Amino acid sequence: MATDKVTSRLPEFLEKIERELDRAMEFWLTHSHDEENGGYFTCLGRDGKVYDDLKYGWLQGRQVWMYSKLYNEVERFHRADILEAAVKGAEFLMKNLRDPETMKCYFLVTKEGKPIKIQRTIFAECFYMLAMSEVARATKDLKYKEEAVKMLRKIQYWVQTDDTELGRPKLSGMTPVNGLAIPMMLLVLVDELSHDDISLAAEFRELQEWTVEQALQHIQRDGTVILESVSVEGKELPGCQGRHMNPGHAIEAGWFLLDYAVKNNRPELKDTAIQKFIVNPFKTGWDEKHGGILYFLDVDGLSPTQLEWNMKLWWPHNEALIAFLMAYKETGDVTYLEYFAQVFDYCFQHFTDDKYGEWYGYLSQQGEVTQDFKGGPFKGCFHVPRSLFMCEKMLKEMLKTQQNGVVNH
Amino acid sequence: MATDKVTSRLPEFLEKIERELDRAMEFWLTHSHDEENGGYFTCLGRDGKVYDDLKYGWLQGRQVWMYSKLYNEVERFHRADILEAAVKGAEFLMKNLRDPETMKCYFLVTKEGKPIKIQRTIFAECFYMLAMSEVARATKDLKYKEEAVKMLRKIQYWVQTDDTELGRPKLSGMTPVNGLAIPMMLLVLVDELSHDDISLAAEFRELQEWTVEQALQHIQRDGTVILESVSVEGKELPGCQGRHMNPGHAIEAGWFLLDYAVKNNRPELKDTAIQKFIVNPFKTGWDEKHGGILYFLDVDGLSPTQLEWNMKLWWPHNEALIAFLMAYKETGDVTYLEYFAQVFDYCFQHFTDDKYGEWYGYLSQQGEVTQDFKGGPFKGCFHVPRSLFMCEKMLKEMLKTQQNGVVNH
Repeated sequence: MATDKVTSRLPEFLEKIERELDRAMEFWLTHSHDEENGGYFTCLGRDGKVYDDLKYGWLQGRQVWMYSKLYNEVERFHRADILEAAVKGAEFLMKNLRDPETMKCYFLVTKEGKPIKIQRTIFAECFYMLAMSEVARATKDLKYKEEAVKMLRKIQYWVQTDDTELGRPKLSGMTPVNGLAIPMMLLVLVDELSHDDISLAAEFRELQEWTVEQALQHIQRDGTVILESVSVEGKELPGCQGRHMNPGHAIEAGWFLLDYAVKNNRPELKDTAIQKFIVNPFKTGWDEKHGGILYFLDVDGLSPTQLEWNMKLWWPHNEALIAFLMAYKETGDVTYLEYFAQVFDYCFQHFTDDKYGEWYGYLSQQGEVTQDFKGGPFKGCFHVPRSLFMCEKMLKEMLKTQQNGVVNH
Repeated sequence: MATDKVTSRLPEFLEKIERELDRAMEFWLTHSHDEENGGYFTCLGRDGKVYDDLKYGWLQGRQVWMYSKLYNEVERFHRADILEAAVKGAEFLMKNLRDPETMKCYFLVTKEGKPIKIQRTIFAECFYMLAMSEVARATKDLKYKEEAVKMLRKIQYWVQTDDTELGRPKLSGMTPVNGLAIPMMLLVLVDELSHDDISLAAEFRELQEWTVEQALQHIQRDGTVILESVSVEGKELPGCQGRHMNPGHAIEAGWFLLDYAVKNNRPELKDTAIQKFIVNPFKTGWDEKHGGILYFLDVDGLSPTQLEWNMKLWWPHNEALIAFLMAYKETGDVTYLEYFAQVFDYCFQHFTDDKYGEWYGYLSQQGEVTQDFKGGPFKGCFHVPRSLFMCEKMLKEMLKTQQNGVVNH
């Protein structure tokens, strides 16, 4: 039976994922540390060689978060060198990445930390907050937590009250938009900051509920699709912007929502997260001819204007691995494990690199590597290890439960 | 002989190019006019259907210029409907695209002309100036010329004196950069505005010489390559930015410089333009395996970080057609006509659309159409007709000379 066959692969999945996580972390720990200035190099070639020494704000924050998370939650990564590297990164962030008065963070700085570029959005700030929140747990140093709380309050203010400080000009033809990225990010930020702090959880409870409502507005066309941008009233927007779909992003939002639904005992939301945010976008986004998840689609089947629409990027596949394994774990429905296996096989045939570790990030529609570097302006120590870490954890829990005979899906 | 063979193709080139120009213009004239609001729709599908009604500032200006240029210089396009469409576009531009006080132009407006996005660069302003300069000749209306002169003075001020008004934040890690786009654009702007006005030509003479000097600084690595961005001292910059090559852009700069060299009787500059800006980048950028000109390259052969680096875009091919035909016309060296034929054949096998006219804009490395629209946020009524118009003109001149027996290359 197909069902038996895929469940019997759980130990294989675990073994390969553990190995890849070790190799990915070894890659970043070996090649990315800037011993002279602090912070991390992220433009790293296939073999880890630095091909550009600029430092991208999103990726600095994400790497601090990833190091701290693994230090806090995985025994074999609870190592002094990893803690030290996380702290050095956090200090680089605090010193160079955010303006202490405005709390705005830079998108790009020189290796020494001098600012080059600032975005008029909230994302560098979100990853800064994630970094501070998790390094606070690793170090038990309250200054980081205070920094994280201060930043989340600021982000909430920008998103819900007044975004003037972000510096975007207000032009008369602009339409206010509900982009999926904002509620998604905020949902995670609140969970990361407050899951072990009752008083903070209470403070941000309403915000979290608001993010869920905002995310659900992206379900469009009688529940069949997730559109990346909708109006603030939750209606479809005109033109390319309105028709834009990002299957990997919808799937990522799906597991954020699924996790929230499980933690808050919300069965209806759990079902919505799985069917509408994970399964439907996956089916729409999967390339039947060549395999892999397409990057962007137009809901009416027109050509997306983004030139990279038909490429296969690493991160949607990382998100799909987490999403389907979580869906299987939380429902016992083996269909989701079969989807997981489908994505897993594509990843291990196309993205992994047996020679140097970490994954390639960018493939053509046909699945050929188009960019051979392991890190770049938008790819750092984040999606690959986060996905492998979460899948390893879920697989271990499921295998343990199986062994104990408590549940056998 | 190969040489005989390619020169014997001149009438074929002319015939096909004339036909494509007619079909391209028919496409824009039929599908792109917004009769209600003025201005042009440029997001047009394969068959001309509007798939987004936003108006992009660069493309509005370019279309006014193209219509006016063809009206002014080509007998069969000297038509009342084309003039009217150019004027309506120019009025839309003046009314909606530029701020009368700051002279800054919007990058994106709604179909009604309400502003959505403004860039902190000078390019929307450059295309605005081109539009005004050429529609002034078509209409003999001085208000357009005054507008063009005022804008060029403003652009010169921003580029050479103070760019504060562009609104870019000054951050301490920024390195001043000489990007090839700026001198290229200014070289053309001055020529377009002043080629029939001695007093304006005198006013901007120094500026034009400065643009040539700035452009020549991009010749790097012992004269073998054109790098897109160099330091203001003309040295190679570190990292990806320093190694970035855009062969199509170098070739375009090449024919701008060649044209300037011919007009100003500068034989050394003529040779530099052909060898360093046209031939070398073409040889580096040509994809020997699949044909066509690659979009971006890294001078050290690393993977470019731009996801679209290996695609084949229409406009570098349009620029190469102009550049090689001009090089052949100005030297009589048949090698350049062979390069022209190589590009011509690729274009007519891959970019043309026998059913609906205009060219596809975006192909995969293998030469398959990845986006089937004819117009989009960055593709309007410009590169295809400009190239066909210029090539038609040069071919006619050459064939006429041949017939008269004056010169036979």
